[in-house]
Amino acid sequence: MRRLNSALVLDAIASAPGSSRASVATRTGLTKATVSSLVDRMIGAALVVEGAAEARSGPGRRGTALHLSPAGPHGLGVEVGVDYLATCLVDLTGRVRKRWVRDSDNRASSPALVLGEVAAAVRIATREDVPVGGIGVAVPGLVESASGVLRVAPNLGWREVDVRGELGRLLGADAGGLPVQVGNEANLAALAELWHGDAPQDFVHVSGEIGIGAGIVVDAGLFEGVSGFGGEIGHLSVDPSGPRCTCGSRGCLERLAGQDEILRAAGAADVADLLARLDADDREAVAAVRTAARWLGIALSGAVNLLGLPAVVLGGAYARLEPWLRPTLEAELGGRVVSAAWSPVAVTASSLGDEAAVRGAATSAVRAILADPEPYVASVLA
Amino acid sequence: MRRLNSALVLDAIASAPGSSRASVATRTGLTKATVSSLVDRMIGAALVVEGAAEARSGPGRRGTALHLSPAGPHGLGVEVGVDYLATCLVDLTGRVRKRWVRDSDNRASSPALVLGEVAAAVRIATREDVPVGGIGVAVPGLVESASGVLRVAPNLGWREVDVRGELGRLLGADAGGLPVQVGNEANLAALAELWHGDAPQDFVHVSGEIGIGAGIVVDAGLFEGVSGFGGEIGHLSVDPSGPRCTCGSRGCLERLAGQDEILRAAGAADVADLLARLDADDREAVAAVRTAARWLGIALSGAVNLLGLPAVVLGGAYARLEPWLRPTLEAELGGRVVSAAWSPVAVTASSLGDEAAVRGAATSAVRAILADPEPYVASVLA
Repeated sequence: MRRLNSALVLDAIASAPGSSRASVATRTGLTKATVSSLVDRMIGAALVVEGAAEARSGPGRRGTALHLSPAGPHGLGVEVGVDYLATCLVDLTGRVRKRWVRDSDNRASSPALVLGEVAAAVRIATREDVPVGGIGVAVPGLVESASGVLRVAPNLGWREVDVRGELGRLLGADAGGLPVQVGNEANLAALAELWHGDAPQDFVHVSGEIGIGAGIVVDAGLFEGVSGFGGEIGHLSVDPSGPRCTCGSRGCLERLAGQDEILRAAGAADVADLLARLDADDREAVAAVRTAARWLGIALSGAVNLLGLPAVVLGGAYARLEPWLRPTLEAELGGRVVSAAWSPVAVTASSLGDEAAVRGAATSAVRAILADPEPYVASVLA
Repeated sequence: MRRLNSALVLDAIASAPGSSRASVATRTGLTKATVSSLVDRMIGAALVVEGAAEARSGPGRRGTALHLSPAGPHGLGVEVGVDYLATCLVDLTGRVRKRWVRDSDNRASSPALVLGEVAAAVRIATREDVPVGGIGVAVPGLVESASGVLRVAPNLGWREVDVRGELGRLLGADAGGLPVQVGNEANLAALAELWHGDAPQDFVHVSGEIGIGAGIVVDAGLFEGVSGFGGEIGHLSVDPSGPRCTCGSRGCLERLAGQDEILRAAGAADVADLLARLDADDREAVAAVRTAARWLGIALSGAVNLLGLPAVVLGGAYARLEPWLRPTLEAELGGRVVSAAWSPVAVTASSLGDEAAVRGAATSAVRAILADPEPYVASVLA
């Protein structure tokens, strides 16, 4: 009962920062005495802080304003990219405290080795002067979120890796007790866009990195499909007789419009080089991006024809390429979406860009605490 | 209040045929007096009949068993096919009372002319010796179900046709007062499969006729996508540089694996002729179906990668072609669905076949009465 009520009270404070105990009681339907006792516990565990008197007109004594504590438990996000490892610490309000990124060639890598690096990154981050309340790990593959098992990550060459279990073992006494969320990086990037970006309540977020991940948000929640393995736009076959993909199929979108293929076709060394060439109107670079936009438009038209989505958010490297992708992409969507005439599809660039997935991972760790604060409170007060 | 309670009571009888007034009261939480008075009204309107005493062990007086009345209001379904017009009368329990089908070339036809034929079919069906309580119309195009407006039906060449309004005007005094549901034929076929067939709770029903329609069922309900225009598998582009489709795009599934294309490639006159050739192991016919199965497998793999669906039901002409479609279809699904190894996709043939859409239309009319019986009861008792 206390567990449920703590979650109710914390949600009331999170959704209306500055509320008094009295207004939390009104909104939750709990007694003032219950709210006060729960709030005192949460102040003791540094989840909540008291500020100045509540700003409020009207009669009655003004209560002190309650806020989520910026010194409270932080969420630690780690993203295992195909060619980098990113870490991010966010506070309870989702504000980024610190962020690290380093190159790391994780293609065809050993899970034990890479998870060892993840554990090292966790150790570095937990040395910061803030408490860490949970870990979120973003991986470029299919994840069974309940168990934290990665089923397959074609671009890493991984299969059946128990990310949560392995990480717990590797962290041992250091941070072994922290709850670990494991999620698909594209899904976490889409959620970050929903939580922190300018995205609407229904959209597909498609991010171009080595792989192409898509996260589908419907009604402000993640759409994972019936099996939990939905949203795999990168493996829509847009050229069925095309080149073999790491997933076993042929002509998958990510084989034709992924970052590697764009760079190769443009003769560019990396994304920065590609952007410089595009700025200089380099013919090959412009054509390479246009070709990718065409394949992307074909795949996204399929997704919209199936899911009836009103908006596309371009994330990852696609966010930076948006000015060059947009014309061809919009033309494909206009020509291939059956309902385009009366239900057009809006195309926007992500406001979070490359940061989205790791930020989503960190925020998911924080949201797990907010949704069920009592275990954290009990561990601190014990 | 009575309106809501009537629906509750009728639902209790429909979901447990043979219940007594007392057990309906227990299950709905209404008083026995309220249930009795509502049941009496529904018996008066012939929605409900009393049968023998309730079959029940245990103490207490046995109440009489209540059933949906087979003589109650029927649902009248009409399907506007591309080359036929089908009509179907079902009783409150969904049992088919009568069914009509006739050829009708509706390609590039005038909506006024075809809807005139629909009105004529309605008049013929209402001459049967049963009361008609509502009409369901299945059309091969995108429908806004709230308004009953058909946005576009590429294979009929129709755009922006107010099917409900037009039909109401054409029927005039004859049956002008009957409520009219308008739906996409593929969606109604999928629902019929859910209501009357052997389908599971989550599946995609794909039916090969002139067009290729797909209805997606998730959690025992229709999935129409955010915009309501989802589920358009027929217009997934499987060969992006392929032939121009009636929808404006290129290489859509229905252009490559639709009935017309299979018959043309097999050199068959119609589906019966094609089946005869397949039975005789005719090489061209077998190759034509195999090619269609390959395109179908590519499109369905895309749908499964996006929606994570565990089952495919082959409907319409595809149901009859299932033995020849299945091997190639399963091979494509196995090779292209990223999660196929641990979440395989079951392929089955529809048990309703060509009848599915019109039956879904008729049953949807009946279900509208069951969901809100009071207007019908009031009209009969007035």
